[in-house]
Amino acid sequence: MSETSPVLDVAVLGAGTVGSQVIRILGEQAEELAARSGARMRVASVLVRRLDAPRDVTIDPALLTTDPAQAIDGRDIVVELIGGIEPARTYVRRALDQGISVVTGNKALLAAHGPELYEAAAANGADLYYEAAVAGAVPVVYGLRESLAGDRITQVMGIVNGTTNFILDAMNSTGASYEQALEQAQKLGFAEADPTADVEGFDAAAKCAILASLAFHTRVGIEDVAVEGITSITADDMAQARETGQVIKLLAIAERHVTAEGTEGIIARVHPALIGADNPLSTVSGAFNAVAIDGEAAGRLMFYGQGAGGAPTASAVLSDLVAAAHHRAYGGHAPRESVYAQLPILEPGLAHTRYHMRIEVEDRVGVLAEVAGVCARYGVSIQSVNQRYDSADACTTITLVTHSGKESDLRAVVNDLKCCDAVRQVISTLRVEGE
Amino acid sequence: MSETSPVLDVAVLGAGTVGSQVIRILGEQAEELAARSGARMRVASVLVRRLDAPRDVTIDPALLTTDPAQAIDGRDIVVELIGGIEPARTYVRRALDQGISVVTGNKALLAAHGPELYEAAAANGADLYYEAAVAGAVPVVYGLRESLAGDRITQVMGIVNGTTNFILDAMNSTGASYEQALEQAQKLGFAEADPTADVEGFDAAAKCAILASLAFHTRVGIEDVAVEGITSITADDMAQARETGQVIKLLAIAERHVTAEGTEGIIARVHPALIGADNPLSTVSGAFNAVAIDGEAAGRLMFYGQGAGGAPTASAVLSDLVAAAHHRAYGGHAPRESVYAQLPILEPGLAHTRYHMRIEVEDRVGVLAEVAGVCARYGVSIQSVNQRYDSADACTTITLVTHSGKESDLRAVVNDLKCCDAVRQVISTLRVEGE
Repeated sequence: MSETSPVLDVAVLGAGTVGSQVIRILGEQAEELAARSGARMRVASVLVRRLDAPRDVTIDPALLTTDPAQAIDGRDIVVELIGGIEPARTYVRRALDQGISVVTGNKALLAAHGPELYEAAAANGADLYYEAAVAGAVPVVYGLRESLAGDRITQVMGIVNGTTNFILDAMNSTGASYEQALEQAQKLGFAEADPTADVEGFDAAAKCAILASLAFHTRVGIEDVAVEGITSITADDMAQARETGQVIKLLAIAERHVTAEGTEGIIARVHPALIGADNPLSTVSGAFNAVAIDGEAAGRLMFYGQGAGGAPTASAVLSDLVAAAHHRAYGGHAPRESVYAQLPILEPGLAHTRYHMRIEVEDRVGVLAEVAGVCARYGVSIQSVNQRYDSADACTTITLVTHSGKESDLRAVVNDLKCCDAVRQVISTLRVEGE
Repeated sequence: MSETSPVLDVAVLGAGTVGSQVIRILGEQAEELAARSGARMRVASVLVRRLDAPRDVTIDPALLTTDPAQAIDGRDIVVELIGGIEPARTYVRRALDQGISVVTGNKALLAAHGPELYEAAAANGADLYYEAAVAGAVPVVYGLRESLAGDRITQVMGIVNGTTNFILDAMNSTGASYEQALEQAQKLGFAEADPTADVEGFDAAAKCAILASLAFHTRVGIEDVAVEGITSITADDMAQARETGQVIKLLAIAERHVTAEGTEGIIARVHPALIGADNPLSTVSGAFNAVAIDGEAAGRLMFYGQGAGGAPTASAVLSDLVAAAHHRAYGGHAPRESVYAQLPILEPGLAHTRYHMRIEVEDRVGVLAEVAGVCARYGVSIQSVNQRYDSADACTTITLVTHSGKESDLRAVVNDLKCCDAVRQVISTLRVEGE
């Protein structure tokens, strides 16, 4: 690295957990990063809400500003780590419109306004990078955008939300209720005071949309993703899963699907599901994330690592910074939006899955036949059935696991069962995913 | 993709298992690949040894040639899938010297002559890509070269040779001897008639050198890697591993190490080792590969997928082709050789590891004290020890597992034990890796 390498001014928007780590590493590893990118990156400004807020790392007070124009204008690269839609969107647009490359970790912004930002970047010769937006340190955006660009992806399935994974883990290992596990997660800083975005699956849905867009070269927005959160998972569901050698995980699934009529399209969904203990995703614990990618030629690939936290997320931001800096110094540019395939988004009811249902039924002759009849009505085939009489509660429970079927048929079975004379209540239904 | 996109002529050198798949997919997915790379890739020539050899896929006979000049000269991109050093090296140089970008899957060539090829590429404005050279479809070259460019890597540990993994798996699951498992692997096509390169660890060592070079921004050649193969692993070693909840895997390990004197350097080694059943690498079976990467900021990442086979390896080649084609069409270039760090290669004896030893000893008082004394002499601390008398063989065995120590000290312990009056023989020594 010669002393004459270009010097690039970097603006960091937001000096929270991740921003602080980015600033620290840019300082501590300046020489190494310059050797790798071919350009010296210098933090030129740090946009904060309050100048006197306490920070994880020491930042030169002269760099701090509360004025977005002062922070952004005229820089070479802007790192956006504010999160949320506004004012992040305005700031990112302000940068891109000036031809300033942007590195962001903002999945909500990308899932809602990705196309607009991509267009602004392309129109102004700027790069748009967002490795940190999905699965923290795990380079799955790179994987799909670049290192699997030669393959035809058929499915992406992942655990991409650390908060829900922590809660489900805690329920599984301690027998806690959802509410207890959530409270624990909040105490330990793994869940926010308002946990809605995580526990209702919206955060995972934003990531699912980003992964689907990249995997299938099609615009997929968060509104295209069918979402169910984890709030209705009970300690009893967990115990049942354990008994059958399974675990419950919140999965983000994006898949290529061909309908009975021959239409090729995409189904994107986020929901909790049972997976077997032999599924590599079952061992992904706590704040770890993992994404399995199926390629027609590559077969199954899996990427695994820390999905959150200051330093791991900063690692993803810094890799994007190195790439953006290299382009600034030597030409070339980040991959543009790739949406040539324009596949239609299909009804989530067309997805193929399996159902694991627990039903409380009347204790009389013919009940099982009635239940089986409902399944047959929708062409749903049964993989296993188990009827049990609990004398303490004077209550008979049927646990029924189906073979793979169309989601809409499986849902219809559940709805019909609810109206069935023999059925007192459908205690729970959970999808089963994986081979 | 407009009809006016540039058309690039691709030469494929070698039409074996991988080459055939590359040619097939370039034909079948021409439109998609053009949409992703921005350029149409057309197979212009296929270099083969025999024009009339049977092939996995149909290739237009007009493309086949046995003349390297005819195959290579004037093309835009050359895909080298011949393997071995010569004539591959001559062909790759011929291409690079003309400014033709090269995509290769040749680990032996890269580990032996990487710097020369990198220099030729840079001097002539050509790209050099080699994702397929390490771990088949698993994008670990991309991972280290690009998506982790912002992090400081501390260790890379992987299972990167499918043949040895298949043999060790077979020994583990069937109780077969090494010789029996090798024979089975040869019958099933997982091992070559001359299996030396695989079973002696040379193939893994070449990959280890490539991974170390990328991870530590330093030239690491195959001669810098300490290598032990799997030929001395016995059915008895396997049984012992199973008893203690472990498995034996051939590991490639490259790590940053700071000596007692404060010198920072690299240790690269390939050897079989015991790893615990809770280590994610322990579940990597058959022809699958996995690489765990530790970054200072990212923490532990893991990449997993198919390490060999025509289609999976072709997936890696095609991704490289898309990148090289994009650069040909729109400017920019592949990462150049990054060797700014120039860390010294340290003695493998400095590596820290643990030893699992089985020793047959005299059946008399004071033997254990003698053995423990040898360990103490080299400052090696004992984690567990187990002495057992087998009345059938009238033979006493000590199984001793050390805490982490310097490889050279552990080796010295073994050497001294061999000369110890109380010791009849050192039955086996195996390293233990992972937390």
